[in-house]
Amino acid sequence: MNRLDLLRQQAQTTESKIVLLILDGVGDIRTIEQPQTALEAARTPHLDQLCESSCLGRLIPATTGITPGSGPGHLALFGYDPTIGKHDIGRGVLEALGLGLDLAPSTLAARCNFATVDDQGNITDRRAGRISSEEGHCICDRLAHALETIDTGSISVRVAPGEGYRFVLLFDSLTSTPLNTNLADTDPQRIGVPLLPLAGETEAASATVQRITPVLDQLRATLKNEPKANAFSMRGFSSLPDLPSFQDLYQLRAGAFAGYPLYRGVAKACGMEVVECGKRIADLTDTMTERWDDFDFFFAHVKHTDQAGEDGDIVTKTAVIEEVDQELPRLLALGPDVLAITGDHSTPAPMKAHSWHPVPLFLHAQFCGIDDTVRFTELEAAAKAGIGRLPASDLMGLLLANAGKLAKFGA
Amino acid sequence: MNRLDLLRQQAQTTESKIVLLILDGVGDIRTIEQPQTALEAARTPHLDQLCESSCLGRLIPATTGITPGSGPGHLALFGYDPTIGKHDIGRGVLEALGLGLDLAPSTLAARCNFATVDDQGNITDRRAGRISSEEGHCICDRLAHALETIDTGSISVRVAPGEGYRFVLLFDSLTSTPLNTNLADTDPQRIGVPLLPLAGETEAASATVQRITPVLDQLRATLKNEPKANAFSMRGFSSLPDLPSFQDLYQLRAGAFAGYPLYRGVAKACGMEVVECGKRIADLTDTMTERWDDFDFFFAHVKHTDQAGEDGDIVTKTAVIEEVDQELPRLLALGPDVLAITGDHSTPAPMKAHSWHPVPLFLHAQFCGIDDTVRFTELEAAAKAGIGRLPASDLMGLLLANAGKLAKFGA
Repeated sequence: MNRLDLLRQQAQTTESKIVLLILDGVGDIRTIEQPQTALEAARTPHLDQLCESSCLGRLIPATTGITPGSGPGHLALFGYDPTIGKHDIGRGVLEALGLGLDLAPSTLAARCNFATVDDQGNITDRRAGRISSEEGHCICDRLAHALETIDTGSISVRVAPGEGYRFVLLFDSLTSTPLNTNLADTDPQRIGVPLLPLAGETEAASATVQRITPVLDQLRATLKNEPKANAFSMRGFSSLPDLPSFQDLYQLRAGAFAGYPLYRGVAKACGMEVVECGKRIADLTDTMTERWDDFDFFFAHVKHTDQAGEDGDIVTKTAVIEEVDQELPRLLALGPDVLAITGDHSTPAPMKAHSWHPVPLFLHAQFCGIDDTVRFTELEAAAKAGIGRLPASDLMGLLLANAGKLAKFGA
Repeated sequence: MNRLDLLRQQAQTTESKIVLLILDGVGDIRTIEQPQTALEAARTPHLDQLCESSCLGRLIPATTGITPGSGPGHLALFGYDPTIGKHDIGRGVLEALGLGLDLAPSTLAARCNFATVDDQGNITDRRAGRISSEEGHCICDRLAHALETIDTGSISVRVAPGEGYRFVLLFDSLTSTPLNTNLADTDPQRIGVPLLPLAGETEAASATVQRITPVLDQLRATLKNEPKANAFSMRGFSSLPDLPSFQDLYQLRAGAFAGYPLYRGVAKACGMEVVECGKRIADLTDTMTERWDDFDFFFAHVKHTDQAGEDGDIVTKTAVIEEVDQELPRLLALGPDVLAITGDHSTPAPMKAHSWHPVPLFLHAQFCGIDDTVRFTELEAAAKAGIGRLPASDLMGLLLANAGKLAKFGA
């Protein structure tokens, strides 16, 4: 029996409540130039005090050395091993989720780039001169307007602008035959050659190509005289992964409290109810307070630790952690039976990027097993932690256990 | 997706360089009689200083409690989980590699023991009275001489002397039908009974038996009147494992700098270029300096730590570590982006043998994440290390990540 099947088999409903607070990219590293991580530098009196009755560990999002994107990083935290193909969130879907678009389980999503081609149809710029978001929005509006009159046959088509030259196309089948995702990218990854025709990698995908192509032709015709972007490429064709839901797997009524669309989208793909809320930790606490009775599991997402890490800004990263610490009493006053604080990956400020480093985990619950750690830091979690080093996809089992939500296995 | 497939998918070429310095069997243990390990006893000023900007961890070669031989130990370090059957290096092949013999991918190798049998053909000594290496060499010369005139049919046969009563037979097919390795040992493991006839465990193997047996009969006839060794047994039939190469898996141009044949052979089986060099650490540095531009990955192998451990000689083991430390400045002057120092297994001096104990790992790189360890020792690596305890086959992922050679996984 695999891990998820075992959890599903043992899961039981109780009244206990779990809060999983994700400080995106919180993990950091010491370097010669940065002798303290943000967790080490931050003044966190409330976390420090809670440490006396808590324990630490470390999470590995994918496998040793692998740097995860936000999609795989969160899937792992929610229990879905992201290295298993069926748990993969495609790039088209992730882009659409990041824009806050609504996807049905069968919606086909593609990431698109505006481009320019010459009279012979050869690509002259794969990113349309990196047009501004404003310009991209305008051209998307024109495409959306055209879609109102185009005969789209057995499918419906949506267009949504992204950043700069990027946009998303969403396709939904209007018949009982679903659209297939096994479509090859149309971007040849170089200039001076034509865009690739849309091609299916299987028979079912070829049928999808036939249904989509007439609409794409008309969209291309719409752009024909667009001076800054007279063509577009498509890639990352994908649909939402078919994940067993939190209710089905864990018997949890799960609520997602996240201010940014990507994380809301991933949570929704796992069957969580996505709650409207702001972006700061205080907004999350406010909203969780309002909805406290409605859920057994609260996923709360703080983005700014990751943003500061990406900016190489250890001062802001430290300040965000201190802001979270200030909010901790209000969060604890809600009375969660299990409080876990961790990240979906590390974003070390010296690297200005996601990384492969283990993510520290803070766990507070009645029977978590108090360890000798005195502060929530990377090296306390490495060297003195009671939990040790776990695959991130093991976290859900640990949270359920601490919440008394897993029955004894065997007699 | 398994770990190697994931690494292969994410691997990217960069200009960074990785040095993996293996101190064979470096790990040791404290006992009542030996209160310090060699790493603890050694004066290592350069390693100590480098520790300030490095981190430690521990590697488990196979799985808890398993003592690996040199073959599995090195395969694990190179990323190939040695407990997976297809990564197994057979004993015949390992013996041949240890003697520095050239093997084609399809060469069939067997470890052989000279033995003695009585007039009825029953074994009287399974090791031919433990004849000396000199005597073994002489008898092998006679076999080689006989092979020059024997009609070997559709195969070619080579003989090579090993230590004492040991030797190796190598068989290559001269047709397009390869030789099969599923052959049972011919040593009945006791005396007073005949040697077992060569027997195939599958149909293809039975065909191999038919092709080999006539040659073996003639070799046996050659020995008939040999007083000290009138027979021989065969075991460990095997060919080189079909390992994906370092280039294919990791996009690495890998060079092996090892003075002893076994390690050169294992490296070659992984697709490394084997560079001629001496056996001391200074020889390795000299040769790596000459070839610095030719590789992205440098496997350097120091044997003497293991030899001293096998001899129970903690003083020599300590001295070898000090010799390596003295060479460290020259190694660092080459400018490796990632330097890892570890062993393929522990060879504790009190045990005079390989052991199952975790092997300490020293890692130095820009973003390795400096930890609180102050010396490279077994117990620092156990109790204060930033990396923690990893399967040895996870090491390559860690090295590639630290070298910036793994793309982000997912968006």
